[in-house]
Amino acid sequence: MSILASDRLLRVLKGQAVDHPPIWLMRQAGRYLPEYRALRAKAGSFLAMCRNPELACEVTLQPLQRFHLDAAIIFSDILTIPDAMGLGLYFEPGEGPKFERPVRQHAEIERLPVIEPEQSLAYVMQAIQLTVKALQNQLPVIGFCGSPWTVATYMVEGGPSKQFSIIKKMLYQAPQSLTLLLDKLVQSSINYLRAQIIAGAKVVMIFDSWGGVLSQADYQKFSLAPMQAIIQALKADPLTQATPVILFTKGGGQCLTPLSQSGCQVLGLDWMTDFKVAREQVGPELILQGNLDPALLYASPEVIYEQVATLLAQVGHHQKHIFNLGHGMLPDVLPEKVAALIAAVKTLAPQYYPLPDLSS
Amino acid sequence: MSILASDRLLRVLKGQAVDHPPIWLMRQAGRYLPEYRALRAKAGSFLAMCRNPELACEVTLQPLQRFHLDAAIIFSDILTIPDAMGLGLYFEPGEGPKFERPVRQHAEIERLPVIEPEQSLAYVMQAIQLTVKALQNQLPVIGFCGSPWTVATYMVEGGPSKQFSIIKKMLYQAPQSLTLLLDKLVQSSINYLRAQIIAGAKVVMIFDSWGGVLSQADYQKFSLAPMQAIIQALKADPLTQATPVILFTKGGGQCLTPLSQSGCQVLGLDWMTDFKVAREQVGPELILQGNLDPALLYASPEVIYEQVATLLAQVGHHQKHIFNLGHGMLPDVLPEKVAALIAAVKTLAPQYYPLPDLSS
Repeated sequence: MSILASDRLLRVLKGQAVDHPPIWLMRQAGRYLPEYRALRAKAGSFLAMCRNPELACEVTLQPLQRFHLDAAIIFSDILTIPDAMGLGLYFEPGEGPKFERPVRQHAEIERLPVIEPEQSLAYVMQAIQLTVKALQNQLPVIGFCGSPWTVATYMVEGGPSKQFSIIKKMLYQAPQSLTLLLDKLVQSSINYLRAQIIAGAKVVMIFDSWGGVLSQADYQKFSLAPMQAIIQALKADPLTQATPVILFTKGGGQCLTPLSQSGCQVLGLDWMTDFKVAREQVGPELILQGNLDPALLYASPEVIYEQVATLLAQVGHHQKHIFNLGHGMLPDVLPEKVAALIAAVKTLAPQYYPLPDLSS
Repeated sequence: MSILASDRLLRVLKGQAVDHPPIWLMRQAGRYLPEYRALRAKAGSFLAMCRNPELACEVTLQPLQRFHLDAAIIFSDILTIPDAMGLGLYFEPGEGPKFERPVRQHAEIERLPVIEPEQSLAYVMQAIQLTVKALQNQLPVIGFCGSPWTVATYMVEGGPSKQFSIIKKMLYQAPQSLTLLLDKLVQSSINYLRAQIIAGAKVVMIFDSWGGVLSQADYQKFSLAPMQAIIQALKADPLTQATPVILFTKGGGQCLTPLSQSGCQVLGLDWMTDFKVAREQVGPELILQGNLDPALLYASPEVIYEQVATLLAQVGHHQKHIFNLGHGMLPDVLPEKVAALIAAVKTLAPQYYPLPDLSS
């Protein structure tokens, strides 16, 4: 199958009519694809693929060669920035990302550099350029970074966490240290997203995986405010101000009102959030992205079809919707379930959408 | 220090005035107390303490000998029911609870017995009886169980989980198997809470640690409905109908309206939920419990004092509040921080409360 052109994502972002919602899936390039696993076995590791622009481009394109998706998302990781800061990112099989040198002391944070991505993360920008070129501008490429709070949790905890005890000790005992760390991540993330946009990303997304472990007051201060600072800086820069930003906080369903006021163009919803409740809270203008349970792809095609029908009925004729899951693809999903999901959207959505088939 | 009598919890549950909100803390008996760690070293393990009524009673009383708390909660575990069903509960150091024989096939679930707790969980009822006797009815004892959904996650996954992939496969591929498992847990939990009430528990609590990983529709079907079935059975039984039920779903902040209509007398709030928003959603009648971040106890006494002040101001003159954290005590908190927390409530609350000091 060759890659089909699509401008559905950019049309929806411009407020133009489409024939069905643009479809892409968080972690659409990844372990659930046999061709990904084959390439990873050859490359040796996840990080080796991220750091090699040709391989990262190849992995980015893999799902597009199988499915009619409406966007590519560059294959990379939310922890490239702290890796470039010198913390020593590595992956322990079955345990997720870890850092050789976590930062916990104020002096350690003071020594951290703000990242100049053109130097230390050039491989990401090269991968974007290669992907844009391969796609011949027929499909938009999404760039991304982790939210400062989420990235900070890994930097301080040294890896994934259940209780987030170490960073919460910092939050409650030394908030000025945490703020300094977040400030450096904000500045680095602005530089990073700007470089990705210059390299050709048409949309950028900020992934906040762990904002949901904070109280409402702490969330606004330590997770939302840094994300907002990134958005404001992008909006203030003539080079980046036209590029839409997708904001996504897992567990952020109780903060939709402040999230909707952050300056983002698209708000990503997780699967625990009711779509209709979210729409009522954020008003009619904001574009919403999401939000089926990634585990739904364990179900039969019939059950997938039913749940797609329920979601599309909740979206209704209002549109302003980007179809996606409420979190990343799970690694043990069968690719044919993704095909069933996309087919269900393409069958069910047109009744709500004004335009005839836009496929090209 | 000797244990002070208090009827604050029962007074609030009856709608009577108090001098300050009743205070208790989820996992108030536990690893953060040096006397607990000493007893555990002697007993050999957490499970050995749970299963020995004298030791379970002693652990239950430990925090009351240090702090002016307004309730005891029986020292036990949410996984006693599946252990009694024969799954073989054990604890891997640093990894949490595990089962030797998880259940995943329909036939395995069909073979599971409904628990008759007077036989297989007699040690829990004996521990409650000993505790009630030791407290001479001067402080209420809270009994508890895990929610059917939460208990089922451990039974199916075989231990703690991040993605809940195995039980979600069951949910989406074999919902009738999951429903059968939940039905057996509902029936066992009704028997179990009934036996705890007969043994002397004055209040019972249902802990739903993992309802928050479900979509709203799945939550209502697979987590809330089974809890509601337990509550309805207790309300229909003359022996148990007067005993108040506390319902707590971590991550349930988006389901407060259905939770408030479940028949519970008290709704526990986690720390991610804004107290004022919750009050507006559930109306003025329901008693709310919670909801400070357990990690706040890493902070200085001054910061703890400020946050208690903020919460009590949110509660205001309305009362109908049981002071607690939004989740269990963390194991590495210093006991003096708990003392600071309680002192802050006792200093700050009386301005909002009508009665003079009720301490006896």
